[in-house]
Amino acid sequence: MVYKRIDGLKKRMEEKGFDAALLMQPRDVYYYAGTSQPCNLLVTQKGEPVLYARRALDFVKEETTLENIKLGGSLGEMKKALQDMGVTKGVMGLEEDVLPARLYNKTAEYYTDFQCKNISPLIMDQRLIKDLEEIELVRRSAGLFSYIHDIVLNYLRPGITEVELAGLIWASIREKGHEGFTAHRRWDAFLPGDGMVISGDNLWKISGYAMTVTGVGKSKAVPWGSSDRVIQKGDLVMVDIAPNYQGYHGDTARTYVVGQADDRQREVFNSVLKVMEAVLNHIREGVPVKELYHLAVKTAEEEGYGEYLQGYGSQKGEYIGHGLGLEVDEPPVVGPYTDMLLQEGMILAIEPKIIIPQWGAVDIEDPVLVTQDGCQVFSPIPKKLFEV
Amino acid sequence: MVYKRIDGLKKRMEEKGFDAALLMQPRDVYYYAGTSQPCNLLVTQKGEPVLYARRALDFVKEETTLENIKLGGSLGEMKKALQDMGVTKGVMGLEEDVLPARLYNKTAEYYTDFQCKNISPLIMDQRLIKDLEEIELVRRSAGLFSYIHDIVLNYLRPGITEVELAGLIWASIREKGHEGFTAHRRWDAFLPGDGMVISGDNLWKISGYAMTVTGVGKSKAVPWGSSDRVIQKGDLVMVDIAPNYQGYHGDTARTYVVGQADDRQREVFNSVLKVMEAVLNHIREGVPVKELYHLAVKTAEEEGYGEYLQGYGSQKGEYIGHGLGLEVDEPPVVGPYTDMLLQEGMILAIEPKIIIPQWGAVDIEDPVLVTQDGCQVFSPIPKKLFEV
Repeated sequence: MVYKRIDGLKKRMEEKGFDAALLMQPRDVYYYAGTSQPCNLLVTQKGEPVLYARRALDFVKEETTLENIKLGGSLGEMKKALQDMGVTKGVMGLEEDVLPARLYNKTAEYYTDFQCKNISPLIMDQRLIKDLEEIELVRRSAGLFSYIHDIVLNYLRPGITEVELAGLIWASIREKGHEGFTAHRRWDAFLPGDGMVISGDNLWKISGYAMTVTGVGKSKAVPWGSSDRVIQKGDLVMVDIAPNYQGYHGDTARTYVVGQADDRQREVFNSVLKVMEAVLNHIREGVPVKELYHLAVKTAEEEGYGEYLQGYGSQKGEYIGHGLGLEVDEPPVVGPYTDMLLQEGMILAIEPKIIIPQWGAVDIEDPVLVTQDGCQVFSPIPKKLFEV
Repeated sequence: MVYKRIDGLKKRMEEKGFDAALLMQPRDVYYYAGTSQPCNLLVTQKGEPVLYARRALDFVKEETTLENIKLGGSLGEMKKALQDMGVTKGVMGLEEDVLPARLYNKTAEYYTDFQCKNISPLIMDQRLIKDLEEIELVRRSAGLFSYIHDIVLNYLRPGITEVELAGLIWASIREKGHEGFTAHRRWDAFLPGDGMVISGDNLWKISGYAMTVTGVGKSKAVPWGSSDRVIQKGDLVMVDIAPNYQGYHGDTARTYVVGQADDRQREVFNSVLKVMEAVLNHIREGVPVKELYHLAVKTAEEEGYGEYLQGYGSQKGEYIGHGLGLEVDEPPVVGPYTDMLLQEGMILAIEPKIIIPQWGAVDIEDPVLVTQDGCQVFSPIPKKLFEV
């Protein structure tokens, strides 16, 4: 499986004119080499890939499926290895979107005979289509939401705080399989590890890091996620969590009511559900990604909630979903500016939400696999407005 | 408080020849502007600092203590602002250790009249000395260990897994104050959010991301932290957690025994304790940082455990502690290569450990405040080998 992935990278490198690639980001290395230990992975057209274990060689040897493993990975060693393969100049690919400037500049200045270019678009293009192993891991990650749902049914009641419920959910899914780490590609992403348990008035307060139901967090130090707000009877409560199962993320959200739903809560939920169903029914290989977004907007407008789809005012997001896998913020953005057709093997989190200021929000999110003639939804529980 | 911090930055900029600083990393912005929302902070010698809220202006206005706030922050807008202040060329400081290469290069290419240089050393130099507000927050963060200790006393027993105990600890400290996010400065750092609950044979298996008691994690996807190992009678169990209280981290570790300690466990614990006490007794303003490390090595050697201090073989770390505050991996490294004197107001996590292959490990860690004539230890519980 791993050499097949290396071959896919080599093919893309050939098409785009890369002579070498030097990968250092843990998720990228994990994808191509099967280990998340601190490593440098050197790939060229001419020789076998070399995996440099910067430390912990014993772990690396046990974990990787590559054969050519060395302890080290200094710039000098890697230059020597390139020379031995006959690669002495040309284009070298580095992960410009994630490597810090100092490391990038140090590397680019050392390899003076190479022109350094961003290799990440090639990697993310390959990671767009999941193989069977990856699909199974996302499915298992998404499956953890059944435990989350159980915790919510058992513990959500007037008097519990958002963060207490989030903590209980964490304890449950850690035991059941969650690696305890949600990976982002964006350099400045940070959020509480236990995801989003957001209630009442916090549902429409949209903090800066994402155009979605963000909550407000415990303090301005980490200004999104669950807070110390005490949940009340009649509250809407959104639970949106992306567990990590052996490196792969699900991303499911459901909305609950504490007690019996009122008419408006039911009406908004039904509108979100209609948007969700319209989008899911439209997914199949060959459909333009942006059509999903436009269809969501059209459906929300028909429902009378176009103004509040994915937020409102300056905090309104132009998307209806996103790719996910080793990271929760993978391409494509399912939005109006994405020129791409749906392809079999893509995994998308589709997440329509209606966020109404001074009122609240309803969110439904499911990770789905794109197939030739439709999609498979991975979430293990029905799309209902659960009255708890 | 915040303008005082800005003044401290300006002073350092003047000394080091920086005409402008453009800060984008959330922790740095939080330090100088009091908000963690996505912002750009522009500081020059000539004018008032400008805080650009890239989004969520309402949150930023409520959170920051700066006065000059604008929505936006494009490269063009900031160039215009610099021109308005009369700053049209010179040296511009960017955070080269954390900004990704693509963002850095885009910025540096836009400000062609400026020479871009790394401003992070100036920031970290300032953050080295904590002010009273910061000291109080670290103290409160460290205080959360009393809840961690209670959970361990109540739930550690044969049959529980590492990760179950870690999950219960998370649930407790989330409620009591933990922001749910542990901040690193190192670009490729990633570990399970609930820290380290490590037992038995996992105590001496040193994974690649740190020369310490790392554990092995649940899978190779996140190869350190707590695992599904079932804890047994007689096991040593190390609990090492850095909670985040309003942005500031404590970092405390204690070692427990399931049942009664045997002679060797007691002996190793007493040796680690002697190292800890020797180091703590030596801390006071004016002492060279590296002396603490050398004293730790000397004490461990006298105890007959020099070979195993901070790991063994190729996985042996040359340090006895580290700075902490807004991030858990702040300078200084308390090690042999640090040329710096201890100063009043530094906060250091001192963490001697003895890690013996095929046997286990004992770790004691406390965050301490350096004072003129000694240090204050922040951990709320005694340094004992607890028999549970």
